[in-house]
Amino acid sequence: MPSEPRIADLGEKKLIKRLLKRSRINSLFLNKFLDEHSVKSTSDDAALVDLGETYVVASSDMLMQSTHFPDEMTPHQIGKKIVTVNVSDVAAMGADTIGIIVSMGLPRDMLLSDFDEMVEGVLEACRDYDMALIGGDTNESRELTLCGTCIGFVEKYKVLMKCGAQPGDVVAVTGPLGLAAAGFEVLVRERSVRKIKSLDPDFRALVLKHALQPEARLKEGVLLADTGTLTSATDITDGLLSEIGEIMDASPGIGVTLYSEKIPVPEAVMEVGRLMDKDPLEMALSYGEDFELLLTIKKDNFKDLKDLEGLDLHEIGFVDSSGVIQMIDKYGKTEIITAKGYEHLH
Amino acid sequence: MPSEPRIADLGEKKLIKRLLKRSRINSLFLNKFLDEHSVKSTSDDAALVDLGETYVVASSDMLMQSTHFPDEMTPHQIGKKIVTVNVSDVAAMGADTIGIIVSMGLPRDMLLSDFDEMVEGVLEACRDYDMALIGGDTNESRELTLCGTCIGFVEKYKVLMKCGAQPGDVVAVTGPLGLAAAGFEVLVRERSVRKIKSLDPDFRALVLKHALQPEARLKEGVLLADTGTLTSATDITDGLLSEIGEIMDASPGIGVTLYSEKIPVPEAVMEVGRLMDKDPLEMALSYGEDFELLLTIKKDNFKDLKDLEGLDLHEIGFVDSSGVIQMIDKYGKTEIITAKGYEHLH
Repeated sequence: MPSEPRIADLGEKKLIKRLLKRSRINSLFLNKFLDEHSVKSTSDDAALVDLGETYVVASSDMLMQSTHFPDEMTPHQIGKKIVTVNVSDVAAMGADTIGIIVSMGLPRDMLLSDFDEMVEGVLEACRDYDMALIGGDTNESRELTLCGTCIGFVEKYKVLMKCGAQPGDVVAVTGPLGLAAAGFEVLVRERSVRKIKSLDPDFRALVLKHALQPEARLKEGVLLADTGTLTSATDITDGLLSEIGEIMDASPGIGVTLYSEKIPVPEAVMEVGRLMDKDPLEMALSYGEDFELLLTIKKDNFKDLKDLEGLDLHEIGFVDSSGVIQMIDKYGKTEIITAKGYEHLH
Repeated sequence: MPSEPRIADLGEKKLIKRLLKRSRINSLFLNKFLDEHSVKSTSDDAALVDLGETYVVASSDMLMQSTHFPDEMTPHQIGKKIVTVNVSDVAAMGADTIGIIVSMGLPRDMLLSDFDEMVEGVLEACRDYDMALIGGDTNESRELTLCGTCIGFVEKYKVLMKCGAQPGDVVAVTGPLGLAAAGFEVLVRERSVRKIKSLDPDFRALVLKHALQPEARLKEGVLLADTGTLTSATDITDGLLSEIGEIMDASPGIGVTLYSEKIPVPEAVMEVGRLMDKDPLEMALSYGEDFELLLTIKKDNFKDLKDLEGLDLHEIGFVDSSGVIQMIDKYGKTEIITAKGYEHLH
């Protein structure tokens, strides 16, 4: 007799879709007026609350010790990370930050000094992103669990969403990919081998920084939204291909073609790949945690954007109407590839 | 040698105060303009974001299996509860709801049917409070963990906060106290004794409903805020005395005198107290989870409020300038009592 289905059989993305589909049906019974966007935004990085000329943007992201915090992450870095992942969701909507609420589930025996260091990390990140810690609460829990709610705002006509990509648009990212993935590979390897002697210390420091202390592209998101030339955007938390899949789900009928040669894979990722027998391109495409922004941009406007100060835009492909993700390799050969992002619960 | 201090040595309230004190110092370094209230609201039930004539209100509350969900609570009731605790925080500010984001930490082996039932509970509660589920995400975790973020709004001049109580104000609550506490007593007892035969079945059903499926006083909060006669408010999640302590912390120099005879302790709580050898008044004063609102009201306006339809206001005492909480018993004897609410992490 087959056993009853468990949630791990479905995987995170399908679970969320199951949840949000039910939610949309539920919304039909609402008496209160709800703007089309507030409901539409349930599949976006953050929720939108319509206030006439502006949207208030609210993200919510939960991180837990066993899934998200490698042993090598300090309490200070853990505090920074809960802020960064939430700010990244707000940045992906082109919004600026106002403040964050951090709810904490804490194990009874957590050292007070670790708690203080974690709070210091939260506050340092708040300073980095120029916003306030506007609330928080603590609960007892079996494992360290942090849930952040970042509140931001964006003028309505500037908001960036996952929907809106059009065939012909340029596909671009705000920075190199695969650094966090390479960092996690180094961490895992160094748990058995004391240190990878052959790895350049600067490369090692760079990839570990991206794995343990990532940064959100807040300034970039605000700057890009200001230009009014983006057709869609999201942040790369679950891997490039997975996020492209999200953009495609939100803009039915489109497809994306990538140039393998144009994916910005830094030297450090190449080197880690070589030393650990991992495909660097795979690290750039299918691991997450890079927190760069993935964008689609009207073709005619892309040149002007490239020259904007403070941006490091990389064109990686274009939107088409194929309905699939394709990759053109260095020999000009086109191949259909499958979206394969990092899946919790799998 | 004394061991290093752990967070359990401090307790939840002191931890939050420690966190928010650091947060206020941090805010001094902010470049972005932040309204006095957005910072002030860090000790309130929800955060306030200033938008000119209105505030957007954002709550964030986390619940975990081991601390908040008794085994007897069904997945449907668990789903309802994460919504209710957050709506209660919004209601305590006199705000109306727009929507809620629910982040979930789920054990791998959770039954899909239980997940669906829990989501149905979330959605039913959304219907009850006339709002939308505007976002959600799922993560893998060791124990079931839910974090809700309820977004609401309130016209600025109507907002209710913990600060503002004045000597002479009437202290009131929106309904009976101690029912949830009595329900939890019954649950605990029935884990060893199959059923408490001598307990009236109607009483049993009533107290269990309050323990397992509490409701937030949203309509009452909005109605009361509309009158413009309240000087302060909060919701009773941690017990009446603990919440009075919060109001006193926020309005320095005041004290509160209660009449023991006027505390609304229902028959069902009296009966459970009698059968289980518990003090019914203690259940009403010091346990939490009732989700009624605690209010201070200008004395001259209280009579008009009592006649408002849809309210069940109980006057329980008055604000004074004693700096302590005092209780006048049925013989007219006054005694100083100590705030003693439910403390997580203790």
